[in-house]
Amino acid sequence: MSGGVFVSGERDVAQTDLPFQDRYRDHPAFGFADWCLRGIGQVVFQNNPLSGLIILLALFFNSAVYGTICILGVVVATGMAMLLQADRVLMRDGLFGFNGVLVGLALVAFTSADFRTGAVPSLPMAVYIVFAAAMTTIVFQALATLLGPHKVAALTAPFVLTGWLFLFAVLKFAAIEAGPLAKPVSPDQFDAAVAYTLPTWYMGIGNAIGQIFFQDNWITGYLIIVGIAVNSRISAGMALVGAAGAALVAVAFGGPEGAIRDGLFGYNSALTAIALGGFFLVLTWRSFLYTLFGIVVTTWLWASVAIFLEPIGMPVLTSTFVLVTWLMLLGQYGFRALVPVPPAEATTPEDNRRRHIGSVTR
Amino acid sequence: MSGGVFVSGERDVAQTDLPFQDRYRDHPAFGFADWCLRGIGQVVFQNNPLSGLIILLALFFNSAVYGTICILGVVVATGMAMLLQADRVLMRDGLFGFNGVLVGLALVAFTSADFRTGAVPSLPMAVYIVFAAAMTTIVFQALATLLGPHKVAALTAPFVLTGWLFLFAVLKFAAIEAGPLAKPVSPDQFDAAVAYTLPTWYMGIGNAIGQIFFQDNWITGYLIIVGIAVNSRISAGMALVGAAGAALVAVAFGGPEGAIRDGLFGYNSALTAIALGGFFLVLTWRSFLYTLFGIVVTTWLWASVAIFLEPIGMPVLTSTFVLVTWLMLLGQYGFRALVPVPPAEATTPEDNRRRHIGSVTR
Amino acid sequence: MSGGVFVSGERDVAQTDLPFQDRYRDHPAFGFADWCLRGIGQVVFQNNPLSGLIILLALFFNSAVYGTICILGVVVATGMAMLLQADRVLMRDGLFGFNGVLVGLALVAFTSADFRTGAVPSLPMAVYIVFAAAMTTIVFQALATLLGPHKVAALTAPFVLTGWLFLFAVLKFAAIEAGPLAKPVSPDQFDAAVAYTLPTWYMGIGNAIGQIFFQDNWITGYLIIVGIAVNSRISAGMALVGAAGAALVAVAFGGPEGAIRDGLFGYNSALTAIALGGFFLVLTWRSFLYTLFGIVVTTWLWASVAIFLEPIGMPVLTSTFVLVTWLMLLGQYGFRALVPVPPAEATTPEDNRRRHIGSVTR
Repeated sequence: MSGGVFVSGERDVAQTDLPFQDRYRDHPAFGFADWCLRGIGQVVFQNNPLSGLIILLALFFNSAVYGTICILGVVVATGMAMLLQADRVLMRDGLFGFNGVLVGLALVAFTSADFRTGAVPSLPMAVYIVFAAAMTTIVFQALATLLGPHKVAALTAPFVLTGWLFLFAVLKFAAIEAGPLAKPVSPDQFDAAVAYTLPTWYMGIGNAIGQIFFQDNWITGYLIIVGIAVNSRISAGMALVGAAGAALVAVAFGGPEGAIRDGLFGYNSALTAIALGGFFLVLTWRSFLYTLFGIVVTTWLWASVAIFLEPIGMPVLTSTFVLVTWLMLLGQYGFRALVPVPPAEATTPEDNRRRHIGSVTR
Repeated sequence: MSGGVFVSGERDVAQTDLPFQDRYRDHPAFGFADWCLRGIGQVVFQNNPLSGLIILLALFFNSAVYGTICILGVVVATGMAMLLQADRVLMRDGLFGFNGVLVGLALVAFTSADFRTGAVPSLPMAVYIVFAAAMTTIVFQALATLLGPHKVAALTAPFVLTGWLFLFAVLKFAAIEAGPLAKPVSPDQFDAAVAYTLPTWYMGIGNAIGQIFFQDNWITGYLIIVGIAVNSRISAGMALVGAAGAALVAVAFGGPEGAIRDGLFGYNSALTAIALGGFFLVLTWRSFLYTLFGIVVTTWLWASVAIFLEPIGMPVLTSTFVLVTWLMLLGQYGFRALVPVPPAEATTPEDNRRRHIGSVTR
Repeated sequence: MSGGVFVSGERDVAQTDLPFQDRYRDHPAFGFADWCLRGIGQVVFQNNPLSGLIILLALFFNSAVYGTICILGVVVATGMAMLLQADRVLMRDGLFGFNGVLVGLALVAFTSADFRTGAVPSLPMAVYIVFAAAMTTIVFQALATLLGPHKVAALTAPFVLTGWLFLFAVLKFAAIEAGPLAKPVSPDQFDAAVAYTLPTWYMGIGNAIGQIFFQDNWITGYLIIVGIAVNSRISAGMALVGAAGAALVAVAFGGPEGAIRDGLFGYNSALTAIALGGFFLVLTWRSFLYTLFGIVVTTWLWASVAIFLEPIGMPVLTSTFVLVTWLMLLGQYGFRALVPVPPAEATTPEDNRRRHIGSVTR
């Protein structure tokens, strides 16, 4: 997940030689903003401040509350990493920030009366969010330590773990006003008899991308795709393949229309598709089939984890993506049909492929 | 779990010098069938195609549906390993196949109106089973990567994990017809007032062996014992000790008669007994006591995991066996009273003991 | 967690040169008693037989049943380690004993009609406790094997895991008489409308320390503080800071008064405070802030885990302490603002600090 050519070196490169998107990375004043924008982009594996900026604007397009919380989450998580003097290379790539974004958005989304727009958090809730975002920094480093020897990235696991732990407790404190979850979190909660129509598809795919950031807005979803495409067209394509594949699988197996249109079956699959489709695996026909396999399994397992969590009424978050992608990445090192890209060398699918094909032809 | 003398070498051995059961292992046409039969045997740690064949026939004796699903599961899982170009040594030992067998049987067993005979799966269900069996191959490799440095085998964990994930979701898709679980999965669901009788014992022990393969048929259970004994009499004996020990513990602590007669307390204990009783530990009096300890704990913990899973109505599968055996195998490397056998060197209890005693006397 | 100057060596030190508390450690007759007393002290990270003795007396002060069960647990767990010929250094430090103490106390506490005094266990229950205590020895070694490469201690995880597994099952056996849990285990079960008063504070802090050992007795809690202070005044202070901090956080966020006064919010936080506050991290202002962060998070997460376990009615035990402390210790190796102390070198906060400052000035 590190950031391309200039990542590991402390080389003295004239700022003007840098590609536009890397120009402010080591700037004394703007550097931190650059890292934070990258942090927003890293939610969908894009180590590029422009991607982060477009995604941030896409969130503001849906709701100013979510846009602001997104900024709060990434600033707190990245700031915590600075306070603790974490690895500078990881910080500059925005890797300490993206879980903070997600945990902030999740805590607001699931405690607001209106999931779609979100509500301004109370002071105790804001304190709670700040602690949760800061905690993701510690969990990220802990998982990086555990997974490092296996050359597998932490993915959004710090968010899932922290998110669950902080969501479970939030309803139990009188100082935090929150009703029961306003948002359905399991396929059971949708009407099974509704027919599939055209909006099931185009709204379902857009919403799936939006749901990665808890945005119930299919236009926001397509704007996020634009943000991804700025950095990698393959990743943008994979996100769409993942979301569309999930809708297809859910329709073929008779999943409830409401859950499909809402993007619930697809947001995990879209992330699995980006991760396996060229990012942590060199893109070949074989790895593309491997990715399709992962999309199908991720889609089914969303229903599975939803049911497991139903007795306590908790949302799945991106746990299915994390679980399936971890298993498929851990497995890959034993399969000669696949060409793994270690996290420290993963940049973009295009670049991974170029480097690999280069090394083959030479 | 690898297979004896001829495993690691690619040595040019005349086929006629091989023991009968290894004659077809590298045969261009029959090799794959050999690996699949070993895969069936590996469910109970027997790397021997004859064991696999006898067990397969024992399944057909109970139900042609289960026999056929067993073949489907092992072929898909082993075939997936070939497609992904997995480690050939592990493939030849049937190690990619046994979790596919179990996940196929479990998905049919728990979605059939009649648990005992099983029902022919619908097309969507068949697709679902094929994906689940293929997924066990990936999970097996992932766990092998994680556990490799600790010299502990994956056991049936790929089955348990994949089985739970696919079972949780299965009831939520309209295209897959399945009622609620027809089979009791927790001690609560049995009448506590029934008295223990002779059939509690002989049917309970047979059923416990049968339940390893989801066969509610005590005669099938004893036929499986014959399949094990063909390869290792110690393992066959241990399976009986495990099943009988579990019945004894459950009776002593007043467990419900129905669950004991059904073999539910015993199938995890039987597997624990085979694994610890000579296979991953050299059989000595001390390791035998260690095995008995494991049998007792595994028996109790079946009830424990059953209760943990009760809110979502899920079966325990072989999770108790995996948990207790992992803990006891991970622990063994710190206890000088025990002589561990690393998975790559484990063949049969008889052979493990011979090699160990050889190395001591030399 | 090992024990200071004389731990690793088998050096021939005249017994009279030893500090008083190490005089009986290698004594042929009293050695085992010394290890067991250390085992009691290790529950709160004190490798000192005097600490163990004072804590044992504090338990007897509350209830002779709990005092006796404490002895049973530590003797069985330490004895099991001897039978299995475990690492002698770890045994001499009492590290195989402390989880046995806790699992014994937990099984009695949650199956007694009166949680406060505990009931004398029946014979089947006593057998069950002996197996559970012996199992913690195996789980401790298993976790030590898994966590060793990451230089993180097992903490009370062997107790939490074994405790849950044995508690889940206990109510399902007719031979073990036990009603439903007599003790509230989740914030839901307390009246939310009760006002905070002075006893909320002084009883809440004392009870939090007591609850580490399942003692619903605030005076016992303060006596345990004395036992800790005999070995390390910093650890005693941290335990108080953890318990008081938890009460403060719970009050600020409107947690139910009954749960606060009962010490339920605080017993995990007190352990987190001891572990992070100087024991596994050199005490500096930065690590003190890190510890405060851990206290706040641990307090919230008690409510979280309680809610997760509510469907099966199980207690949290010390799982929140284990989870937060593991994450914060695993994370620390990536944060240059902190100075980690590997488990094998951790003695007391005072001694850790002295060695570190020594190495800096030299």
